Amino acid sequence: MSIVRYGIIGIGNMGSAHAQSLLSEIKGAELTAVCDIREERLKWAEEQLPENVRKYSTPKELFESRNMDAVLICTPHYDHPALAIEAFQHGYHVLVEKPAGVYTKAVQQMNDAAAQSDRKFGIMYNQRTNPLYQKLRDLIQSGELGEIRRTNWIITDWYRSQNYYNSGGWRATWAGEGGGVLLNQDPHQLDLWQWTTGMMPKRIRAFCHFGKYRNIEVEDDVTAYVEYENGATGLFITTTGEAPGTNRFEINGDNGKIVVEDGKLTFWRLRTPEPQFNAEFTGGFGSPECWKCEIPVQDGGEEQHKGILRNFTNAILHDEALLAPGEEGIKGLTLSNAMYLSAWTDNWVELPLDSDLFYEKLMERVKNSTFQKEASETITLNVKGTH
Amino acid sequence: MSIVRYGIIGIGNMGSAHAQSLLSEIKGAELTAVCDIREERLKWAEEQLPENVRKYSTPKELFESRNMDAVLICTPHYDHPALAIEAFQHGYHVLVEKPAGVYTKAVQQMNDAAAQSDRKFGIMYNQRTNPLYQKLRDLIQSGELGEIRRTNWIITDWYRSQNYYNSGGWRATWAGEGGGVLLNQDPHQLDLWQWTTGMMPKRIRAFCHFGKYRNIEVEDDVTAYVEYENGATGLFITTTGEAPGTNRFEINGDNGKIVVEDGKLTFWRLRTPEPQFNAEFTGGFGSPECWKCEIPVQDGGEEQHKGILRNFTNAILHDEALLAPGEEGIKGLTLSNAMYLSAWTDNWVELPLDSDLFYEKLMERVKNSTFQKEASETITLNVKGTH
Repeated sequence: MSIVRYGIIGIGNMGSAHAQSLLSEIKGAELTAVCDIREERLKWAEEQLPENVRKYSTPKELFESRNMDAVLICTPHYDHPALAIEAFQHGYHVLVEKPAGVYTKAVQQMNDAAAQSDRKFGIMYNQRTNPLYQKLRDLIQSGELGEIRRTNWIITDWYRSQNYYNSGGWRATWAGEGGGVLLNQDPHQLDLWQWTTGMMPKRIRAFCHFGKYRNIEVEDDVTAYVEYENGATGLFITTTGEAPGTNRFEINGDNGKIVVEDGKLTFWRLRTPEPQFNAEFTGGFGSPECWKCEIPVQDGGEEQHKGILRNFTNAILHDEALLAPGEEGIKGLTLSNAMYLSAWTDNWVELPLDSDLFYEKLMERVKNSTFQKEASETITLNVKGTH
Repeated sequence: MSIVRYGIIGIGNMGSAHAQSLLSEIKGAELTAVCDIREERLKWAEEQLPENVRKYSTPKELFESRNMDAVLICTPHYDHPALAIEAFQHGYHVLVEKPAGVYTKAVQQMNDAAAQSDRKFGIMYNQRTNPLYQKLRDLIQSGELGEIRRTNWIITDWYRSQNYYNSGGWRATWAGEGGGVLLNQDPHQLDLWQWTTGMMPKRIRAFCHFGKYRNIEVEDDVTAYVEYENGATGLFITTTGEAPGTNRFEINGDNGKIVVEDGKLTFWRLRTPEPQFNAEFTGGFGSPECWKCEIPVQDGGEEQHKGILRNFTNAILHDEALLAPGEEGIKGLTLSNAMYLSAWTDNWVELPLDSDLFYEKLMERVKNSTFQKEASETITLNVKGTH
């Protein structure tokens, strides 16, 4: 194979952006098919996409056309796992948009289907191409920071107005989207939180506020406290209600602290690791000598979605290692599922998550959701500059 | 009265530093008496303090000498309320070191005694003289920030080695000190958290780790989540175990956000208040125009303890308003008491605090404390540069 033929399922906000990339910017990739169940999006495709890109009105038609090697799933979140499973069954490689799904129970089934297939499976965690977080992961995984003691991510710069939420009837509903800021805005941070540190919590206590700042039924404000196996603690603080908000990720370890903020990575590095200093220090007040190190981060942060498309294409063509294996999508989703469950039960949630219990609690909310699929009107937003 | 004669009870770390200030640097103040139950500290006083400063070996002798107008209480925390009550009963003005005490039940009795007295009552909240926090309070209280939505104080730059804890047998024990980082290091921040914002939480969920980094029986790592009456949330994160740690206080409001860090105050000010922007915005993505404003903070941050001594002296002499009224000491202590209680009960704690329940739970720990008063050895540390 010298070229990967892609079919995109769902050509709304993200799908249409990826279509443009696949048409012109990804070496070794070709867009050969798209599919959308919405007439107005198919009409858009007829008008805007080349004639040789086939247009289908259902995933079934697309799957059966065999007019591609790989499918890129850009539908509403709920449909990701079922479509991925069907794609694997048809023998396609699968690249799924984030989040992996809405609840881990379905995502585990998707992972099982991937495991039984010999096709490639990727997830659009484009922030893994960001040199800032690659460097952070490098400093942690190589041992520069030492054993981690605390993680603290304030990610509150997701401002969304009421009018944004009004732009799609499915938005910010339990039935239509399955969650709010955790599910729509934060999947990347929830992934990076565990990918850069290499640690998943062992238990979570979260405080979610639902429709606090906007007339929506899902959460728009979350504070989550976690504890890790090694004794470290962590915080994840997020909202769509604040302006201008903050994006600051601090990680403390035996050898100092790292802060990622404003596109910069700063490492306050102890000359002597803290445990050693503590063992040897004979004074009263006093602390280890600390150097403020500005860590160089390479350019190239513009790759993002295109970086993932390139990597996935090369994985198929040349067996290049996947930067974001699809199976890892369940990790970030486990974190957000656990946060909801903690808030709903007003209690600790232990990991591994009880995925049946979460599914049950979610379905209670879906049942009472205000969202009605028939009645909803959807506006396609320009997502340039968003993730 | 043209001069206030001070007696200091407890001339250990802080008491001896205040003695030096009162001897030479506070206009209108005079040091006329000191008292300490420890022989080695009295010996120090005999050798280091002028002859006209009377030395007593018990508070009783000092109180009965009538050789002063005001007493400054610098004993271990547990003794603050009882000594203050006795001082009021003898008709003295009272300035108490922080914290106000160890448990609010006793501190409420101290406040009651103060209310029944016509003497001045102050607390050594010297950080209230810090122009940085005065300016922060000004921006909030004057309405510049608008309604508060979130407070987030990361105050983890309290590094203390094992050797520091070993310097006094009373240190970091339930019986000797009554707490750890919350009670010894954080009283100023716990005060400023509520003093600058003007808000006390309505409920608290805290996660305290006891002896996590050091061989001590009290807490050295705390994460506390709070909710306020107006719907705002807050976080207070503290430890003595990290180096170099962080001191960053972020407050978000309707008009933007303020960050106090590295001795600077930055106000990200929205041109249009967020609620108004949200009501008027008709686009998809988009957020209020925001100006990064560097707020000038006047010099003079060196006043600190001397500032409080000056203010308290002027309050007695000229009825100057107290910057830190003693009655307000109960607020910060309520916060730390509530954090312990939440951790001990692994549950929410509602305010007003159940002070009897807290006292009961504390006494269980005191009973099992490793600290034995007789056996302890104490080293006086140089507290220059600490608070």
